[in-house]
Amino acid sequence: MTYCVGLLVHDGLVMLADSRTNAGVDHVSTFRKLTVWENRGDRMIALAAAGNLAVTQAVVNLLNEGVAGEEDGGEPTTIMQVKSMREAAQLVGRALRQVFALDGEALRQSGAEFAASLLLGGQVKGGAMRLFYIYAAGNYIQATRETSFFQVGETKYGKPILDRLVSFDTTLQDAAKLALISMDSTLRSNLSVGLPLSLLIARRDALEVAHNLSIDEKDSYFRVIHSRWSRALRSAFERLPDVPWD
Amino acid sequence: MTYCVGLLVHDGLVMLADSRTNAGVDHVSTFRKLTVWENRGDRMIALAAAGNLAVTQAVVNLLNEGVAGEEDGGEPTTIMQVKSMREAAQLVGRALRQVFALDGEALRQSGAEFAASLLLGGQVKGGAMRLFYIYAAGNYIQATRETSFFQVGETKYGKPILDRLVSFDTTLQDAAKLALISMDSTLRSNLSVGLPLSLLIARRDALEVAHNLSIDEKDSYFRVIHSRWSRALRSAFERLPDVPWD
Repeated sequence: MTYCVGLLVHDGLVMLADSRTNAGVDHVSTFRKLTVWENRGDRMIALAAAGNLAVTQAVVNLLNEGVAGEEDGGEPTTIMQVKSMREAAQLVGRALRQVFALDGEALRQSGAEFAASLLLGGQVKGGAMRLFYIYAAGNYIQATRETSFFQVGETKYGKPILDRLVSFDTTLQDAAKLALISMDSTLRSNLSVGLPLSLLIARRDALEVAHNLSIDEKDSYFRVIHSRWSRALRSAFERLPDVPWD
Repeated sequence: MTYCVGLLVHDGLVMLADSRTNAGVDHVSTFRKLTVWENRGDRMIALAAAGNLAVTQAVVNLLNEGVAGEEDGGEPTTIMQVKSMREAAQLVGRALRQVFALDGEALRQSGAEFAASLLLGGQVKGGAMRLFYIYAAGNYIQATRETSFFQVGETKYGKPILDRLVSFDTTLQDAAKLALISMDSTLRSNLSVGLPLSLLIARRDALEVAHNLSIDEKDSYFRVIHSRWSRALRSAFERLPDVPWD
């Protein structure tokens, strides 16, 4: 399983992914699920992936090597060449469809699913910062002021805190903190989501990565979040009034 | 969808169920999903049900009218006649199997699932208080000191708070409060879980219901939980240290 979350707020973008993959509980590995492309001053693009690892790795490879055009079969385009985030989302969609054309039928025959849910965030010079949710079919939706975060993978455990506290006006600091709390709840409740975490923070219009961190069990800040959030919840709980029926 | 949670703690039992059923978003109704049987001083038994409503209602009807024995086909036994909670769980399992024998094949042919997940809690004179999770196949597991709560239906949104704060030593008051907070998170994140709620509280060895409440949007205590918990989370969040990377 996987948990990835992306938040696009007024000040910028936060993307967070775990790194555990499993094919059964006795087949567990660690793979980075957040890929970052950066050319300072020109573009900063990040892709977080949930689903079939073979599918999502193939998509990343295509984005690096170039995806052939849909009609003309002309020069392949790489993610470093797209002229806007919308073009980047279309390129990811096209890559997904090419992987599906190649592997979809064989996957179906072996009883496996062509599963992929991708979060694509970033900014290309001359355009706005964007965050997209890209479906396995290659189509996509984009985050708005009203819906400023997307999740893929094991989304439910970590959703209530985001539903309550995230808005477009959340600061970048708070967005990163909320992403980590949401991840902490997911880690506790689903063993197939695991450390280390990949955390990306980018300021709007900076056209560069502000932070691209790997967070493991030794990371002192995540340890603080992990222990203090539990304590904070407990004390918040203790301050609620008792049920009045006794 | 449905969300039901049962907690068996040192001091007693809490069971909480929502009441929304839906067959598509344009076919939404309200049904009580928590059934309570009580004969003061002799027994107190409660059943919370998720799954196919026709299946779970049929089970409740059988428990009221009597379930024929598996082998001898002798006198049917009702839930008011069982001599222990384990016998009650077996009776529910037998009822499920009889409903499956009657309707299972027709359900399959119409593409519907024989879905039922039941929480059975209570106490019968001479025995201990118990909480069971009963599967659609009619088999079951029981809560222990280490695992003192079960959930059925839309379980994930409301699980992190229980994972963090519930233990066997949680007071009955706190167990009820935690069940309501867990439900509040679920209500916010899944539209197909809805008010009114059915809440049952029973003290260990009392052999009677302490509280059997219906909680709707006008219930002042639930409104307090709903609004104060969000505020408490926000202030707990604000007291966490900021990310140190800036």
